[in-house]
Amino acid sequence: MLGIHDTTSISIKLSFFCCIFNKFIFFHLKKGTKLRIADFVHGTDGLGNQNFPPPKGKPIELSAADFLIQQASCYPGKVTVVALGPLTNIALAIQSDPHFVKNIQQIVVLGGAFAVNGNVNPAAEANIFGDPDAADVVFTSGADVLAVGINVTHQVFFTDADRDKLAESNGKYAQYLCKILDVYYSYHHVAYSTKGVYLHDPTALLAAVTPSLITFTEGVVRVQTTGITRGLTLFYNKQKRFGEVTEWSDKPSVKVAVTVDAPAVINLVMERLTNS
Amino acid sequence: MLGIHDTTSISIKLSFFCCIFNKFIFFHLKKGTKLRIADFVHGTDGLGNQNFPPPKGKPIELSAADFLIQQASCYPGKVTVVALGPLTNIALAIQSDPHFVKNIQQIVVLGGAFAVNGNVNPAAEANIFGDPDAADVVFTSGADVLAVGINVTHQVFFTDADRDKLAESNGKYAQYLCKILDVYYSYHHVAYSTKGVYLHDPTALLAAVTPSLITFTEGVVRVQTTGITRGLTLFYNKQKRFGEVTEWSDKPSVKVAVTVDAPAVINLVMERLTNS
Repeated sequence: MLGIHDTTSISIKLSFFCCIFNKFIFFHLKKGTKLRIADFVHGTDGLGNQNFPPPKGKPIELSAADFLIQQASCYPGKVTVVALGPLTNIALAIQSDPHFVKNIQQIVVLGGAFAVNGNVNPAAEANIFGDPDAADVVFTSGADVLAVGINVTHQVFFTDADRDKLAESNGKYAQYLCKILDVYYSYHHVAYSTKGVYLHDPTALLAAVTPSLITFTEGVVRVQTTGITRGLTLFYNKQKRFGEVTEWSDKPSVKVAVTVDAPAVINLVMERLTNS
Repeated sequence: MLGIHDTTSISIKLSFFCCIFNKFIFFHLKKGTKLRIADFVHGTDGLGNQNFPPPKGKPIELSAADFLIQQASCYPGKVTVVALGPLTNIALAIQSDPHFVKNIQQIVVLGGAFAVNGNVNPAAEANIFGDPDAADVVFTSGADVLAVGINVTHQVFFTDADRDKLAESNGKYAQYLCKILDVYYSYHHVAYSTKGVYLHDPTALLAAVTPSLITFTEGVVRVQTTGITRGLTLFYNKQKRFGEVTEWSDKPSVKVAVTVDAPAVINLVMERLTNS
């Protein structure tokens, strides 16, 4: 995780991902919460230590939460948020505007580790760990939420050979991305002993753009906000009727991705980047 | 969960389970902690509301923890504890006697819900929920611990037809058990919509008697002791190397059951009971 300046820069730079998938997507601009710096995953600049020149675009004046509220209000039922970081601002939007939950079409959350170990620690996935309280607000808000956790994104594996193919192409964004990837590949090699990387963010984005790429189940998700499993996402599948009221009772259901057509995701990413 | 008098009575009555499997097993006598009464599962007397006459045997004078310590010390490396309830007394034994962990051969824990929903609430299994702090002490003690969670015991399903077969037999303990089972069957029908019941305790007992009936994996288990997922068992499979120290780092590994030969368990239980 990076500071507000860095993440805003990255958001502007990475907006090409939105363009190449022809859908209007907001990037989540973080602010306010105590940050956990994941420079060992993404580099100190969040873009593989490439120190690219600053972006020409300017951040908008509105806060991220107010921007979300405004856009959802202007285009009710038409805006999908793909949340690729902690959910602070989306929770703020939910808490600030009682209409936000019904105005927003869907919130696709890249986050959670459902019935698998986390990637920050054995209990928690990084984006949820970044703001567990906000995540619990979003999951229990009643909005149409689709969670794409690392149990799914770890199925989408971009190999050394895939990277070589990108590097050999003339795609503008393929070239850009290859420069960024060194740090990310090194991290995976050390942490997971893999010769390749997990495509977390592209999988969540494609789940929004092409929902048929994934399957999902439905149930109630709560987030543990304290203790050693802080940031844990606990999905209740509603298979058992509990005699007593639980913290999952009477909470709205969300969708949780279960499978992904990983080869199709890899092919789509490869095709768009090499032809960019 | 029941009071100390009830559980002691049940322990004495149920000691026939030890006899029929020819192994010396202690039953876990609970004391001290605030109890959650699961009369809707087992009946108000813990034995299906049969109100059998009081047992003729007498409780021993020693506390359960001291008895465990004494036996493990008398027969070092020879005593396996099969813990079929909350782990309060075993944690007390571990904390009271620094030699207990090496004196005890194995602690087979019926408890935990590994990567599945719990049975008290979506996060927690009943025995661990009964004393999460004690469970965390046991799992991190360094003893040879085998956890048999509901992810495994829910694979061992005793059907209505199985029960009919028991009822038709002349087995002394088969007849005894059939009387107890009404409440337990009713509970499963309402809570799980199943025509049959899960054999939790016999599975854990048989895992101790005949280890080849199960397979297990190894890793570190910690128990969440606060918040909405209090009682959750979180298994770290050691597949990822975390850059930072976590609450699972440097803790000893335990065994966690993964599969069970369910037909063999059913057959063994059926055979011993019908021929008793």
